[in-house]
Amino acid sequence: MVFEKVLSTINKHNLIESGDKIVIGISGGPDSVCLLHILSRLKDKLDIELYAAHLNHQIRGIEAQKDALYVSDICDKMGITYFLKSIDVPKYCEDNNLSIEEGARKLRYEMFDEIKQKTKSNKIAVGHNLNDQAETILMRIMRGTGLQGLRGIEYARENGVIRPLLDIERKDIEEYCEVHNLNPRIDESNLENIYTRNKIRLELIPYMKDNFNTNLIESIVRMSNNLRSDSDYIESEAKSEFKNICKVTSDTVDIKINDFSKLHNAIKVRILREGIKSILGDTNFIEQKHIEDIIGFESESKINKMLTLPRGVFVYRKQDCITLTTTEIVIEDIDFLYNIPSNGFVKIKEVNTIIETQTMTIDRYKSGKVDKMSRGFDLNKIKGGMVVRSRQQGDKIKLAGGSKKIKDLFIDLKIAREERCKVPIISDEQGILQVGQYKSSENYKIDEKTKEVLKVTFKKL
Amino acid sequence: MVFEKVLSTINKHNLIESGDKIVIGISGGPDSVCLLHILSRLKDKLDIELYAAHLNHQIRGIEAQKDALYVSDICDKMGITYFLKSIDVPKYCEDNNLSIEEGARKLRYEMFDEIKQKTKSNKIAVGHNLNDQAETILMRIMRGTGLQGLRGIEYARENGVIRPLLDIERKDIEEYCEVHNLNPRIDESNLENIYTRNKIRLELIPYMKDNFNTNLIESIVRMSNNLRSDSDYIESEAKSEFKNICKVTSDTVDIKINDFSKLHNAIKVRILREGIKSILGDTNFIEQKHIEDIIGFESESKINKMLTLPRGVFVYRKQDCITLTTTEIVIEDIDFLYNIPSNGFVKIKEVNTIIETQTMTIDRYKSGKVDKMSRGFDLNKIKGGMVVRSRQQGDKIKLAGGSKKIKDLFIDLKIAREERCKVPIISDEQGILQVGQYKSSENYKIDEKTKEVLKVTFKKL
Repeated sequence: MVFEKVLSTINKHNLIESGDKIVIGISGGPDSVCLLHILSRLKDKLDIELYAAHLNHQIRGIEAQKDALYVSDICDKMGITYFLKSIDVPKYCEDNNLSIEEGARKLRYEMFDEIKQKTKSNKIAVGHNLNDQAETILMRIMRGTGLQGLRGIEYARENGVIRPLLDIERKDIEEYCEVHNLNPRIDESNLENIYTRNKIRLELIPYMKDNFNTNLIESIVRMSNNLRSDSDYIESEAKSEFKNICKVTSDTVDIKINDFSKLHNAIKVRILREGIKSILGDTNFIEQKHIEDIIGFESESKINKMLTLPRGVFVYRKQDCITLTTTEIVIEDIDFLYNIPSNGFVKIKEVNTIIETQTMTIDRYKSGKVDKMSRGFDLNKIKGGMVVRSRQQGDKIKLAGGSKKIKDLFIDLKIAREERCKVPIISDEQGILQVGQYKSSENYKIDEKTKEVLKVTFKKL
Repeated sequence: MVFEKVLSTINKHNLIESGDKIVIGISGGPDSVCLLHILSRLKDKLDIELYAAHLNHQIRGIEAQKDALYVSDICDKMGITYFLKSIDVPKYCEDNNLSIEEGARKLRYEMFDEIKQKTKSNKIAVGHNLNDQAETILMRIMRGTGLQGLRGIEYARENGVIRPLLDIERKDIEEYCEVHNLNPRIDESNLENIYTRNKIRLELIPYMKDNFNTNLIESIVRMSNNLRSDSDYIESEAKSEFKNICKVTSDTVDIKINDFSKLHNAIKVRILREGIKSILGDTNFIEQKHIEDIIGFESESKINKMLTLPRGVFVYRKQDCITLTTTEIVIEDIDFLYNIPSNGFVKIKEVNTIIETQTMTIDRYKSGKVDKMSRGFDLNKIKGGMVVRSRQQGDKIKLAGGSKKIKDLFIDLKIAREERCKVPIISDEQGILQVGQYKSSENYKIDEKTKEVLKVTFKKL
């Protein structure tokens, strides 16, 4: 039954293809020994090559040497090439400031990868079982997780790791080992989180089974399998939306804000995580709260706001996109100041613009053509010499509604922060006549008393 | 803090609108008393009308009368109209063969609805809190659930039930009652599942907090809130696909199979549940397994298969759709048999078809027009009298590839089961010449030796 079930798991999840070369991680415990035995039985049927890899963590002293001996014996019997490696894991962890779990895991997978390369293998098989799955999911639920985490351990990962025993209960694996006289060693493969895991395995799950549901393991794994399908669906939808609305360069992701706004929150959250992942490699230390803050950037009132996330990710709200980047955007401050003649022109080379001025009678002005790029002012109201310049702190203009700060005007007009210093501002000695092509002051307006007009024309080079 | 948080929950989830009339379910325990007090404080601000409803379950004897007295006192103090009702719940449950939990719940909501109608209210407020939420989710996880179940208790339901305290921890509610001198009674509102719930509340959660995560409640509720967003997204996508590809009548749902096949499994599952819900009202007793069986119907080889689900739902795989229905499709067996003259016609009234026959020389046949509705046979090869009839069990025809069962031919031609008996079959005393307009026998074929031809023409009336 175990054998058939493993084969069905392999087929259902496409874990193994003909021609695969597989490194099997073997601790000597029931899981890995059962895995080795089953894959060895399937060797010819599936047309695969097998290697075994055992790491002596040097944690269990003499027992560890017996583990290694056992592994070499059983591999010899099955005719499987094996690799043994011994590393002082506790020392390595101390030297590198890692917990034993983290260090052991790191070294184990480093060894797997080394042997994978040496043997030109393409896959690594490890022995996690159905109980491990349920325990992992319960642990994640207790510590807080999301849909992704509730998928539990994956049957196959992109890096070639496969888990053919993931549908098999621990007791069935132990029975398999007995029936086939495999005499496995005590399983020490789950060094990771041994304390927490043992508590879950030996206390929590038995308590839950006794009091709430004897089929607890199956219920949790069934839930997880259904959620995996849901998770796959949302992830694939989010990935395709990400491609549609994001422009990615090595250190920057621009997200089109109009398209982004229309999406469901479940997709927004994933697009932002995907964006951060694409510039940082992962989303460690990026919390739910940070993602919610970025989503808050959607609102128009947030234009030109900036946010700093952990690990040096800057988030900018621009006119039409949200930008995630590791490169801080430094706004170059363009500064210019030119005198304006009453009749003539000024070239503002900093912003590639020409300002033309003409003085004329009101009649001539009125008989002229209406021109979107021109504005007329009452010449009589202009006091002293005129200049065209970049904005200055504290600039104000008199509008129909009253005096308004140029800064607030820029915000209203949704002019991006980096564009603001490029807007030519025309002023006399008393105040501002005109802000770019956007707004004219009420103070210099042509009225029924106007006799002479100053006509100002903007030309882009 | 509790007050502000409740107001924020109300706003975030649009629980209350100006002008609402709300029936508050009040047991006398801390949750419902706190809820009553807070809504009463919000009465003017939110412009709402409040009524209180208390049910004496007659389970707690004299204590229950004290509860009722307490409720009437506190409502009087707050100036809130209240309704008290006393029902012998244990007797009702015995009479109706319900558990105390089920019966109490049913009677409580019946009372709420009654008072809602009497007072022309549009909402019912109940006092579930953050701990109830975490307990519910843990209970569901242990018993097996899906994404929908992991949403936990809803803030608002379509039937008007709202839960403004769902973000507040139990201890904060108790503190609120103390600070405001409300002196609530012992809470008996959670009669539902009292044994399981108490085990979770008093044993499981404290154990989990001590051993795995002191912030367990928050972690679980945060998970649930994120999953709610994911669940909303998938449900809304599934609903819109359902509208696109399903035709719904009162007792039948037709699902277009070509469109259905292209969807992700997560959406397929939900469309099928939605379909069943639309004909049954809910999906009780419909299991994961049944849904998977229906998805298996996609394959073409399943055309004309039928499946029976619990509660009398029939599933049919038709040519271009999967049909869910409570009305069994009875295939009316049409039966007919007519002699065919060598020159003349036969009217088959059962299928509104006329069969015309003409005998002619091969030369005349060949000089005639090619006609899609006509077939020619070598008259010399026909033995004895000819008939046109409906199919019979065991019917076979000789084709180029050999003898073929008419049944298999119908399957190949994808002719729906209910259409098969309507296909006219022409035979002589030895065998079948022609199956409808579809296939002619090799045995009666015109060849180089043919002298006389029988031309058969099909005409639809």
